[in-house]
Amino acid sequence: MTASSFAFEPWANTHQQRIEQVLSGVLPTDELLPERLHSAMRYAVLGGGKRVRALLCYAAAKLVGTDIIAADTPAAAVELIHAFSLVHDDMPCMDNDDLRRGKPSCHKQFDDATALLVGDALQSLAFEQIAASQAPQALIQVQVLAQATGSRGMCGGQSIDLQSTGQHLSLAALETMHQYKTGALIRAATMLGAYSAASTDHALLMTLDQYSRNMGLAFQVVDDILDATADTQTLGKTAGKDQAQDKSTYVSLLGITEARTLVRKLHDDTMQLLSSYDQAADPLRGIASFICERSF
Amino acid sequence: MTASSFAFEPWANTHQQRIEQVLSGVLPTDELLPERLHSAMRYAVLGGGKRVRALLCYAAAKLVGTDIIAADTPAAAVELIHAFSLVHDDMPCMDNDDLRRGKPSCHKQFDDATALLVGDALQSLAFEQIAASQAPQALIQVQVLAQATGSRGMCGGQSIDLQSTGQHLSLAALETMHQYKTGALIRAATMLGAYSAASTDHALLMTLDQYSRNMGLAFQVVDDILDATADTQTLGKTAGKDQAQDKSTYVSLLGITEARTLVRKLHDDTMQLLSSYDQAADPLRGIASFICERSF
Repeated sequence: MTASSFAFEPWANTHQQRIEQVLSGVLPTDELLPERLHSAMRYAVLGGGKRVRALLCYAAAKLVGTDIIAADTPAAAVELIHAFSLVHDDMPCMDNDDLRRGKPSCHKQFDDATALLVGDALQSLAFEQIAASQAPQALIQVQVLAQATGSRGMCGGQSIDLQSTGQHLSLAALETMHQYKTGALIRAATMLGAYSAASTDHALLMTLDQYSRNMGLAFQVVDDILDATADTQTLGKTAGKDQAQDKSTYVSLLGITEARTLVRKLHDDTMQLLSSYDQAADPLRGIASFICERSF
Repeated sequence: MTASSFAFEPWANTHQQRIEQVLSGVLPTDELLPERLHSAMRYAVLGGGKRVRALLCYAAAKLVGTDIIAADTPAAAVELIHAFSLVHDDMPCMDNDDLRRGKPSCHKQFDDATALLVGDALQSLAFEQIAASQAPQALIQVQVLAQATGSRGMCGGQSIDLQSTGQHLSLAALETMHQYKTGALIRAATMLGAYSAASTDHALLMTLDQYSRNMGLAFQVVDDILDATADTQTLGKTAGKDQAQDKSTYVSLLGITEARTLVRKLHDDTMQLLSSYDQAADPLRGIASFICERSF
């Protein structure tokens, strides 16, 4: 089977609109006390982003045969965690970035204290939503998402990143950092979709685990390539930051050409991994191509 | 039944030592990557504090008849959330406080970015621990703790507090703020203990809910009294901050005498509430007296 008959863009658009609605329903309205905090939470989450993590969750849920409604909550939860991380990353004590998704970042639009609380409250909301869903595997979902978020996941990756700025990392150290910083949440997004079924076949879990690891790595290499080659307007965030901050990246370590070769290899491996699955795997194939082809 | 035959201090000491050990086991060692983050997480959580929230959890678990082992994880989770909130509250963009539990606060001992990540990772760890415990009511525990932490709980209370500094709040507005800011987590600590049983009787849940609401309010009124009357060394944190920051407090609104009368009434109401329970309620009575008597 190939992805040739599957139209990824309409599928992605449909699911991007769907997750936007789900997120809007999940976030407290800004008429509810505390209004300013709720307003800032909505600002930070809604109306932007490619929603790659939600798409991964929906696509994995499709492969394991879950009704789409069961994937709404985990997809929203992982987007809430992602949004929280962007808000905190942009703060002056971290990356100090004024621009996010083409708009002023949350602490610029509101203030630093509000941005801090926005991130904190978005994290709680993610776990609250999963717990409230009462899904058959909700407890596993909480565990997977919490591990991916914490000190041995996203937050840990940020910490390694901070300590390594200005230092020249080995490729192995860079991979570890990104497995934590970006890979863990990409993986969690996929596995939350896998665990949206009442039970999940072990072989499928193994396939999705490998898929998500490939995508986590590809995502970061592509990000480094785009940071080095695209302009700020195209990215919707400040371009060329890695070089300006003297960060080790896949581009600085491998060069552009070899970084692109790595992405192509990850793409091909992923297509091979999914080759025995029928059209239920089309969205996963479509996302893999979408992530990788941005850098080709 | 009365609490007269029950020695609160030995009970509290035993359980404070117990939660310290549980927390030490739950926190990743600082030999594990990322070492600096893990070291800062341990610094922020271990070796200080009265552990009132853990004690509430253990005491509630005792009333509902749970084995103490089943209360360890929820007690640790609520202390992790509390520690995360202290780390973020102390940061320059929030209360900008250099002192906590008699030591330099986390961002002073480490740095602002690390403190931000410490708080984020402690929150994840709390939910990860509950989910991993596989307790019969773990999903309810996640939900209760997440609600108490988020925008309609602790984080929301902080947000209201920030917006109201320099403004003179009504008593009703002050109560709402504190219900969110402090009361929600005090309540969650108690209810997590209640939900540590395989199932919990409805009447007991109602009693513990009322108990925790009384304690949440008492705790804050006492805190305001101590801030106005004790010195920095006694408190282990900067004293007189409320007045310096022109904050509305129970003391500024009611005066010291009436604030103390309110605490005494909450204490008496709570003893009345628990009067039909046998010695299984002794720890809850002991905590109530401990919280309230600090201000007498």
